[in-house]
Amino acid sequence: MAQPSDKALAALVKKIGARRIDVSQKGRFAASYDSARFSVMPQAVIRPKTNGDIRQTLLLANRHKVPVTVRGGGSAMTGASVPLKGGWVLDLSHWKKARISAKESLAYVQPGVTVEQLDNAAAKQGLFYPPDPSSKKYATIGGSISTNAGGLRGAKYGVTRDYVVALEGFLPTGEFVRWGLPLRKFSSGYNMRDLWVGAEGTLGVITQAVMKLLSRPAMRKTFLCAFKNNAAALKAVGPLRESGADFSILEYIDELSVKCAADFMGRPAFQKYPRSALLLVEVDGSPAQVAAAAKRVQAWANTHARAFATSKSETQAEALWQVRRQCSPAMFYLGDSKLSEDVVLPMAAYEKFVKLIGELEKTTRLPVPVFGHAGDGNFHVHFMYNRASKDERARAEKGVKKLLRGVIDLGGAISGEHGIGVSKSPYFAWQHSPAQVRAQHAVKRALDPQNILNPGKIFEATNVADFEPVRVKMPWDHKPPVPPR
Amino acid sequence: MAQPSDKALAALVKKIGARRIDVSQKGRFAASYDSARFSVMPQAVIRPKTNGDIRQTLLLANRHKVPVTVRGGGSAMTGASVPLKGGWVLDLSHWKKARISAKESLAYVQPGVTVEQLDNAAAKQGLFYPPDPSSKKYATIGGSISTNAGGLRGAKYGVTRDYVVALEGFLPTGEFVRWGLPLRKFSSGYNMRDLWVGAEGTLGVITQAVMKLLSRPAMRKTFLCAFKNNAAALKAVGPLRESGADFSILEYIDELSVKCAADFMGRPAFQKYPRSALLLVEVDGSPAQVAAAAKRVQAWANTHARAFATSKSETQAEALWQVRRQCSPAMFYLGDSKLSEDVVLPMAAYEKFVKLIGELEKTTRLPVPVFGHAGDGNFHVHFMYNRASKDERARAEKGVKKLLRGVIDLGGAISGEHGIGVSKSPYFAWQHSPAQVRAQHAVKRALDPQNILNPGKIFEATNVADFEPVRVKMPWDHKPPVPPR
Repeated sequence: MAQPSDKALAALVKKIGARRIDVSQKGRFAASYDSARFSVMPQAVIRPKTNGDIRQTLLLANRHKVPVTVRGGGSAMTGASVPLKGGWVLDLSHWKKARISAKESLAYVQPGVTVEQLDNAAAKQGLFYPPDPSSKKYATIGGSISTNAGGLRGAKYGVTRDYVVALEGFLPTGEFVRWGLPLRKFSSGYNMRDLWVGAEGTLGVITQAVMKLLSRPAMRKTFLCAFKNNAAALKAVGPLRESGADFSILEYIDELSVKCAADFMGRPAFQKYPRSALLLVEVDGSPAQVAAAAKRVQAWANTHARAFATSKSETQAEALWQVRRQCSPAMFYLGDSKLSEDVVLPMAAYEKFVKLIGELEKTTRLPVPVFGHAGDGNFHVHFMYNRASKDERARAEKGVKKLLRGVIDLGGAISGEHGIGVSKSPYFAWQHSPAQVRAQHAVKRALDPQNILNPGKIFEATNVADFEPVRVKMPWDHKPPVPPR
Repeated sequence: MAQPSDKALAALVKKIGARRIDVSQKGRFAASYDSARFSVMPQAVIRPKTNGDIRQTLLLANRHKVPVTVRGGGSAMTGASVPLKGGWVLDLSHWKKARISAKESLAYVQPGVTVEQLDNAAAKQGLFYPPDPSSKKYATIGGSISTNAGGLRGAKYGVTRDYVVALEGFLPTGEFVRWGLPLRKFSSGYNMRDLWVGAEGTLGVITQAVMKLLSRPAMRKTFLCAFKNNAAALKAVGPLRESGADFSILEYIDELSVKCAADFMGRPAFQKYPRSALLLVEVDGSPAQVAAAAKRVQAWANTHARAFATSKSETQAEALWQVRRQCSPAMFYLGDSKLSEDVVLPMAAYEKFVKLIGELEKTTRLPVPVFGHAGDGNFHVHFMYNRASKDERARAEKGVKKLLRGVIDLGGAISGEHGIGVSKSPYFAWQHSPAQVRAQHAVKRALDPQNILNPGKIFEATNVADFEPVRVKMPWDHKPPVPPR
C-alpha cells in the first residue's frame, strides 16, 4: 500500500514528540498483524500519552488523509487490527488505568486493560465482570467493546454490550465526545454508545469505558454430559432450556473435538463411551441457587444423557473442564492450520446445522471439528488443513463460504463475537441487504467523512488469502500438540 | 405550519387508496397531540395496511418533502408524537399482531401492541416482559422502543433496550431493513438496532420487533418503609444496594407526595408517622429467592427505617402499593396542572438532589412533589401550578430549567425514560457537547437526507409554551382528586 507523505509524519512529530512515535521495522511489524495472521506494514506506530496526543493524531490524519488503525492486544480474529491501508497504528495497549467503584458496581477503565485484569480487579471487591472471551488474558477492553466480544457465559450473562454503561473518546474527526454517563438510565439523544460497541474501531477511538459489574457468584457446579452423537447432544439443548435450570455455561463439544482432546489427554472423558459428543453445563450463584439449578440439570441429564459426571469441588470442576480446554490445541492433530468461524444459529436449526457440518466434511474432504456456546447458538467451526497443501487451503476456503452461506440460509449470523473485520468482509453483503449495507455505510461516512479511521474494514470486500500469511508465534497461540500416544 | 401540496396527498391516495387516509378534522385532531398537551394539525392521518403502504408513503414523502410522524398510543410525555411540522401522521396503533415463541423465550410483535398486551400474552405461557412504564395500558411497543421506556422494575430488570433482540422496518427513505435477527449473539456490522431504540421515531419506522422474554417470577413480596424525611429515605438506598438484596423495585415517595396520597386515601400510610418519606421495596422470583432477598431487606429495614410493613399475600402487597399508585392523581391537590420531568441522578448525588428540590420549591414558590425509581436514580419531579395563573406557569417553567441545569451539574441526565421530543429540545445542548450534537445530527442527516421522518424533534430547540395547550381528556389521565376530607 502507498504510505502517506513524510510531511504528515513530520507534522505529527512536531505536535506530540518523536518518542511517542515508533518507526522502527520491529515496532511496525509487531503492529502489522493480528490473529488473522496476515500483515500490512504501517508507516508508524503512535503510542499516545494523553488525550491531547490522540486528538492531534486524528486532526493531522484528517488533514493529510492518513489512515489510522487503533490497536489493543492484537488478538482480533478477523484482521480488524491490521492497518490494511497502511498509515498510522494508534496503539492504546499501554492505557491501563482501572478503578473499581464498589458502591456503584462500576469499573472505570482505560482501553488497554485486559478482560482478565478487569475481572481480577473486580474480584478483589467481590464483584464480577462476566464476559470471558477465550483470549481474555490478552484481549483488551477497548477491543472487546469494538467486537462486542462474547465468551462462554453468554447464555446467562450476555455479551460485552450488556456491560457497557458509558464511553468516552474521539470521533474520527478528532473531536472529544462522551456517550452516556455512569447512570442506570439515559434517554437523552441517540444511542451512540451502542453504535461504537461492535463497530470494530471504525467510528471512534475509545479512551475510557464505564463497565457494569455484578456480584460475584459464590460458587459453581459443573456437569459433563455424554451423548451418542452430535445430533443427540444438540437435541438435548432444548429440553435443558425448557427445564428452567438457570445455567451459566452450556458448551457443546462435538465427537471429533472430543476424540482429539482424548488423544491429547491420553484418556477419554468417559471410559465407557469414548466416542461421544459432550455438553458441559455449569451453574453458578449462591449455594441455594446452585443447589436449585443443579437439581434441574441433574434431572435433565438423567433423562437425556447416556452418562454424566458432576463436580463436588473446584478441583473436580477443573478436571471436567479439561476436555473443553484441550479442544483448541488438540485439533491440530487434524492439520497444522485452520480457518475458524464463529457462526450463530437459531436453536430451531441445530439439527440442520449438524447435517450442514457433515456435508461440509464431505465436500471439503477436511476434518471440521466444532465446539461452542450451545446456550446462545454461537458455534466455532474449524476447517483443519495443512499449510503445505495449497489444495487443502483452497478447500478450506470453499468450506468457509459454504458454511457462511448455509448459516445465513438457516436464519443465522456469520459472526457472533469476532466481528467482520477483513476476513469476513466478502460475506458482509450476504448477511445484510443492499439497503442495510448502504445505511451502515452512510453512518460511517457521516462520522468519518475522510474515511481515516480503520479504513477498508467491514464494507470493502477483501480476500485475506491474497495476503502472504505471517509466520509468527503469538502469545495466545496454543502449544503444538504432542503426538498422539 | 405550511401544509404540503395537495399533489403529494393525491399521489398517495392513488397509491394506497383513500380509505387508508383520514383527512377528517376529528381524525387529524386526535393525531395532533400527545401527553405533552399541545397540538399541531397534520394534513392527513395514514393508517397503512401493509408494508407496501408504508413504503409508498415514505417514497412519496421523500419525493414531495412531506414530514411524516409515526404514531402509536400517543402517550409520549414530550411531544415526540406530535406532527410538529404538519404533513402526515403514520398511525400504526392498529398493527397489533403478536406471537409468543415459548421455546425461544421471544415475542414477535407489531408496533401497535401495547406493553400490557405483550406482558399478558407472555404471562399465558409462564413468561414475563419486565419493562412496565406507568402508561403500559396505552403505550405501544413501537413507542416504548422509540423512547427506550423504563418503568418501576429498572433496577433489577433494566429498560426496553435490554429486551430488543431484532427490529424490522423502513429507513426514512422507504427502504426496508432488518436490524439483528432472532439470535442471542450477532456481531455482524454496525448495531443499527440500538440506534433505532430511543431515537424517538426520527431514524426509521418499526414494523416488527422481536423482544426477549424471561421466566415469570413465581411470587413477590413487598415492603413499605417509612423514613424521617426525604434525605433519610434516599440515604438508606446505598445500604440497601450494598446489602446484596436483589430487589426488583425500589420506589421513592417524598414527604409531599406521601401527604397528598394520604389525603386522597383518607388515611396515612403509617398511623404513627403520618409525615414520612417512603421507600417501597419489592423482591420477586422463586419462593427460595424471595425468602433469601426478603431476609436481607428486612434486616436493612430494621436498621434504617423508622417503621415498615410487609406483605404476606397479594392482597396485602396491593394494599401497600396504594400509596404509590395514588401519588400521581393525588398531587393535583397542589395545583390543577403540572410540568413533570424524568431526571436521572447518580446515587452519589442523592443528598444534593434533595437539597436542589428544596431550593426549587423556594425559588419557584410552587409545590414540587417527587417520586420515582430510587434503584436506578430515575426520579419524577413535578412542578404543580394552576393554569389560570400565567405567573405560576412561568415559575414552573423556570423551575424546570433550574432543575435540568442542576441535574446536569450533579452528573445526571435530563431524561431517563421519556426522551427529548419537543419539550426537552431546548435543553438537549445542555446534556451534549457541540461535538456530540453534531455527531448525532450527522447520523440523522445520513439516514434521512430529506429530513422527512419526525422532523423538528430532539435537535431543534422549540419552546412548548409557545403553543396553545390542548384541553382534552386523555385515556391515561388521572381522575381529578376528590377534595381532601
